[in-house]
Amino acid sequence: MAASDRLNQTSNILDKSIQKSNSQLSLLQVDTPFKVCVVGSGNWGTTIAKVVSENTAQHPHLFEPKVNMWVFDEKIEGTSLVSIINNKHENVKYLPNIPLPENLVANPDLLNTVGDADIIIFNIPHQFLPKIVQQMKGNIKPTARAISCLKGFEVGKKGVQLLSAYVEDELDIPCGALSGANLAPEVAKENWSETTVAYQLPKDYRGDGKDVDHRVLKALFHRPYFHVSVIEDIAGISIAGALKNVVALGCGFVEGLGWGNNASAAIQRVGLGEIIKFGQMFFPESRVETYYQESAGVADLITTCSGGRNVRVAKHMAKSGKSALDAEKELLNGQSAQGIITCKEVHEWLETCELLHEFPLFEAVYQIVYNNVAMDKIPDLIDELDEFRVE
Amino acid sequence: MAASDRLNQTSNILDKSIQKSNSQLSLLQVDTPFKVCVVGSGNWGTTIAKVVSENTAQHPHLFEPKVNMWVFDEKIEGTSLVSIINNKHENVKYLPNIPLPENLVANPDLLNTVGDADIIIFNIPHQFLPKIVQQMKGNIKPTARAISCLKGFEVGKKGVQLLSAYVEDELDIPCGALSGANLAPEVAKENWSETTVAYQLPKDYRGDGKDVDHRVLKALFHRPYFHVSVIEDIAGISIAGALKNVVALGCGFVEGLGWGNNASAAIQRVGLGEIIKFGQMFFPESRVETYYQESAGVADLITTCSGGRNVRVAKHMAKSGKSALDAEKELLNGQSAQGIITCKEVHEWLETCELLHEFPLFEAVYQIVYNNVAMDKIPDLIDELDEFRVE
Repeated sequence: MAASDRLNQTSNILDKSIQKSNSQLSLLQVDTPFKVCVVGSGNWGTTIAKVVSENTAQHPHLFEPKVNMWVFDEKIEGTSLVSIINNKHENVKYLPNIPLPENLVANPDLLNTVGDADIIIFNIPHQFLPKIVQQMKGNIKPTARAISCLKGFEVGKKGVQLLSAYVEDELDIPCGALSGANLAPEVAKENWSETTVAYQLPKDYRGDGKDVDHRVLKALFHRPYFHVSVIEDIAGISIAGALKNVVALGCGFVEGLGWGNNASAAIQRVGLGEIIKFGQMFFPESRVETYYQESAGVADLITTCSGGRNVRVAKHMAKSGKSALDAEKELLNGQSAQGIITCKEVHEWLETCELLHEFPLFEAVYQIVYNNVAMDKIPDLIDELDEFRVE
Repeated sequence: MAASDRLNQTSNILDKSIQKSNSQLSLLQVDTPFKVCVVGSGNWGTTIAKVVSENTAQHPHLFEPKVNMWVFDEKIEGTSLVSIINNKHENVKYLPNIPLPENLVANPDLLNTVGDADIIIFNIPHQFLPKIVQQMKGNIKPTARAISCLKGFEVGKKGVQLLSAYVEDELDIPCGALSGANLAPEVAKENWSETTVAYQLPKDYRGDGKDVDHRVLKALFHRPYFHVSVIEDIAGISIAGALKNVVALGCGFVEGLGWGNNASAAIQRVGLGEIIKFGQMFFPESRVETYYQESAGVADLITTCSGGRNVRVAKHMAKSGKSALDAEKELLNGQSAQGIITCKEVHEWLETCELLHEFPLFEAVYQIVYNNVAMDKIPDLIDELDEFRVE
């Protein structure tokens, strides 16, 4: 085949792909367009609100175009952030220099934002979730469906609870999750990336065209620059989203020691293995494929381990000899590196289960952060696992 | 448990691990110590020769300490490289500033190097393999066993042939492979890394203590700074080792376009998926776990995509608009980016099989390199796959 023929062939494949995608969406019909809202307006919250607002505007037969975004209002040089967003169509505080769609409307009243929504997207810092969920109780449509963009889980005496399960339990509505290799500023700039949405049809599913399903969620989140894969494995993407931060600390340690790319890749390999094992042990319904095939699995792990807060804090610890707490203070300006909290929760839970020895990397990270174990012991600590595995 | 107790516990685990590892090796006995040689003396060849020489010196009950390394002799400022290596214990040309063990002996005579060896380690550039193997025919011990450190496969009319299988066929001896997240200079400096050795016991296996087995290979290659996992899946690690270079070109393109970490992680995710699919399709005996659990799989992919020749050439193409050939010439000083050759071989083979559509990333890379398709079409080209997958 000549080069020009091949070029035509490629261009044909492309055209077919786009046509197919459009025709799929125009075939999709719903009885009443869904009302969508976003709870949260940080950089990731605003970015996701931008994504869905672009889609609701484009598919009015599926969604009410107007998207309410709940904003904890504050004054920016004397003016309310809510009114700035609604007048300038820019979140000057948390996502500056990114134009927002006009159908995205900032709303300072939480209950007014969520009250009539069919789809509620949570995108707030982890620690605010309980308070916000308590306020929402009894003030949402009983038929509403939720998607949580929060990463992670809570570990308590009852064991590991997914944040989506917490929302489900407290609000009595089904809740899925969105997670992926998505550094917010890059998505906001419309650099191409991928994500994973996980959702399970609820027991009270009302039927095609009447309820949220995988096609509706794809239509809501998929953009030309934000490619969405919709799956069922909520546990898998939540586990991966939380534990990757612990692995990233390990990568930061070996980077800070000057051990280079091989060592960082080794930590990521071992980390992926322990993430899968953790998932299989405590959420046996989660699928191994989720961890190595989805954006929320291996891709998010790679992105997180190539930079971000956890890597930076761990590198700083390695180079300066400072404690995790001091390193956090110096670098993060009051914010926290999530892996530092997660590795402690995971340690305490695994200790209760007497399973610490099954997760030598997670445990090594914990011991380095909390008990001052020397970082250069990581290879020996990890090898314990391999000794078992090889035989 | 108090912090000090935990520290003791950790230190106990470590001690036990080291004791266990040592006691396993002292339990391992062989009738006659194996003679080991290395064919090749580039930076990776010399590094591996250093690794095995350290182990043969340390375990004389398992290995003849002296390791012959075949060196294609050349003059360095008038002096033979072989004699420099043997006098200075440094490969000044290909691995400068790294002291080599004294029991590692450079040998300019190929047949003399391999003639009495029980274990032959191949570590030469791909293109020299046929000529060297032909010279060796009939000049090695019929009971010898080989390990290939060459990455990859050859694609011809008969299909995909592993390089280890080529050695087996031509020399009539069993041949395993070694592959991992191992940038040679970092291993040479004894920065910690991991690798995977794959070997299958041959039909004429002579029994424990009389023949090479997994424990012998672990003793030969494992160092405190070079952690070895020994498995059986030769096909898996060879496929991964070849195809990662194609994926790395894809990463270089999106990096060069300025699309950032999310995009590079997405390419790696899709690439891992296509590597697994390729392996399953053409080597159904290879194990999916190899790709996502072993150093030769996901970790080598991550290391390779974070730097190296393929990424550099692809980035340069993206930034300058130059062809692959021109970019290679400008950057690599006569060397080649292996992915450019591999993506063509893979394309031709998949075209023969009418399976191009199953591997959209590999095909996109091929089309960009050889048919001038625009790089920013990658997301659409890849999405074809996802459309199928989601439904």
